[in-house]
Amino acid sequence: MIIKTLTIVGVGLIGGSIGLAAKRRRMAELVVGAGRQLASLERARALGAIDEGSLDLPAAVHRAEITVFCTPVDRIAEQVLATAPGCVPGSLLTDAGSTKAAIVANVESKLPGHVAFVGSHPLAGSEKRGPENADSDLFQDRLTIVTQTPQTNPAALERIVRFWQSLGSRVRVMDPAEHDQALAFTSHLPHLSAAALAGVLPSEWHELTASGFRDTTRVAAGDPSLWTAIFAQNRTAVLDALGRFTEQVGRIRTTLEAGDWEALDRLLGQAKRVRDALGS
Amino acid sequence: MIIKTLTIVGVGLIGGSIGLAAKRRRMAELVVGAGRQLASLERARALGAIDEGSLDLPAAVHRAEITVFCTPVDRIAEQVLATAPGCVPGSLLTDAGSTKAAIVANVESKLPGHVAFVGSHPLAGSEKRGPENADSDLFQDRLTIVTQTPQTNPAALERIVRFWQSLGSRVRVMDPAEHDQALAFTSHLPHLSAAALAGVLPSEWHELTASGFRDTTRVAAGDPSLWTAIFAQNRTAVLDALGRFTEQVGRIRTTLEAGDWEALDRLLGQAKRVRDALGS
Repeated sequence: MIIKTLTIVGVGLIGGSIGLAAKRRRMAELVVGAGRQLASLERARALGAIDEGSLDLPAAVHRAEITVFCTPVDRIAEQVLATAPGCVPGSLLTDAGSTKAAIVANVESKLPGHVAFVGSHPLAGSEKRGPENADSDLFQDRLTIVTQTPQTNPAALERIVRFWQSLGSRVRVMDPAEHDQALAFTSHLPHLSAAALAGVLPSEWHELTASGFRDTTRVAAGDPSLWTAIFAQNRTAVLDALGRFTEQVGRIRTTLEAGDWEALDRLLGQAKRVRDALGS
Repeated sequence: MIIKTLTIVGVGLIGGSIGLAAKRRRMAELVVGAGRQLASLERARALGAIDEGSLDLPAAVHRAEITVFCTPVDRIAEQVLATAPGCVPGSLLTDAGSTKAAIVANVESKLPGHVAFVGSHPLAGSEKRGPENADSDLFQDRLTIVTQTPQTNPAALERIVRFWQSLGSRVRVMDPAEHDQALAFTSHLPHLSAAALAGVLPSEWHELTASGFRDTTRVAAGDPSLWTAIFAQNRTAVLDALGRFTEQVGRIRTTLEAGDWEALDRLLGQAKRVRDALGS
C-alpha cells in the first residue's frame, strides 16, 4: 500500500507510532503531522515519526490522501467535520479514538459526500504519552477495530482495513455500538477499578505495594482529561459494565461475610480460567 | 551470613527462589528442601535451588539452623508447631506467608521455649508457581516485612532481618496486625477487583482485551486455593478494604450518572497522582 500524503492529526503515542510504522514500512511518500504545539511537532520530526509538521490543521488534511485523527475522543468529530469540506474528492479520513458510536454517528450525519470516513480503534494504547514513547511496532500483532455501519463506503472500509494491516495490525470489523459495549468491559471498566484501587490506598502504605498492586492499577496513570472524555462518550455502556462489576464484587463480599470459602474458591477459580484463557 | 543447614519447606516459586538466592550468595553450607511430592523436590534440585530433597518434614526441620516455611498460609502454623519440639536449641523458624497476624499469634501461643519463630513476608510473589519460575534475584531490591510482637526474641528478629537482607531484600519490621491491614489494601483487595473484572468479562469479547485489561487482571491467574486461604485468614481487614473500595466505586458511579465530568476528572486525577508516586 502506497499513500502519496498521509496526515496524522495529533502526534502523541498513537499518532507518533503510526508515523514511525508507516515510514519504516515505506507506506507513504510523505507523512505530515498536524498539531497545535510546535514543540511536539518538532520532537516528532526529530524522532522520525513525521516528515513535516504543520500548525495549520485544514491545510494538512486537505493535501492528504489519508488522514488519521489521533486526538482526544471529544475533539475528533468536530475536527473531521471542520476539515472535510475542503478535502479533494476521494480523501479518506479515519481516527484512532477509544470510543466509536458517538464519533461515527456525529461524523456520518454531517459529512460531505465527496470524502469518506471510517472509524478505527487500534487496541494498543498505554498509560504513557507523547511521541517519545512512540514505537514503530506498536500495532504489530495487535488488534485494530474498524467500524462499519449501513452508511460506510465499502471501498473506503477495505482501504482502511488494509491501512491498519499494513501497519502490522490484525483487524476486526464491528458495529460502533458493539465496539463501545465491548470496550466498556475490556478497557473502560478496568480503568475505573484501577482508579478506585489507587484512590483508596492509604498513603502510609505506598511502600508496601508490590508488582500485584502496580499491575492492577497501572492504567490509572493515564491522562484524566482523556479518560473523562471517553467516559462521557460511553456513559451508558460503562454504567452497565460498572453495574455488573459491582454485583460481582458484592457476590465476593457475601462469601467473605459468610465465611463461605468454597463459594469464594469457585468465584476465584472462574476468574482464573478467564484470565488464563487470555494469555500473558 | 553463613548458615550450616538452611531448610526450605515448600520449594515452589518463593521457596525455590530462596534456595537459588542463598546458594548463589553462598549463604548456606547445605540447603535442604522439604516437601510432599518427590517430583517437585527433584525439579528443585535439578534447577539448583536445593542440595537435597526430603519427604520427611520433621527430620528436615530438626537438622536446620534456620527453616523457612513457604507453604500455604493455612498450613504454616501447624507445620511450625508440629516440628518445633524436636528442633535443637537455638533453631530459628520463619515463614514467607502473605498473612501474618493469625500465623504469628497461633505459633507464639504454643511454641516451645528452646526455638524462636519470627514471621516474614517477602513482597515478591507472582501469579506463577513452581520451582521452574524461581529466580535468584526475586528478592533483589524488593521489600520483606518481618514481624515483631512483645514476644519476639530480639536476637532472632535481628538474625531473620539479616537473612532477608543477605538474600538482597530491603526489610521493614512491623506489627503483624498492621501488616495484615496494609496488605488487605495493597495485595488482597487488588486480587478481588481483578477476579471481579475477569469474572464479568463476556466470553465473546475476550479477543478485544489489550494490555490494560491484562495488567489489571493479571493477579487473578493466581491459585484459587492459596488465595482463599489468605482471605480466610485476613477476612476482617479485607472486608474493611472492600468496603472502602465499594464506596469509591460508588463515588465514581455517581459522577457518571450525574454527568459530573469535573468531579470524575478530579477522582481520576487523584488516582493518577497516587499511581504516579508508586513508579513503574
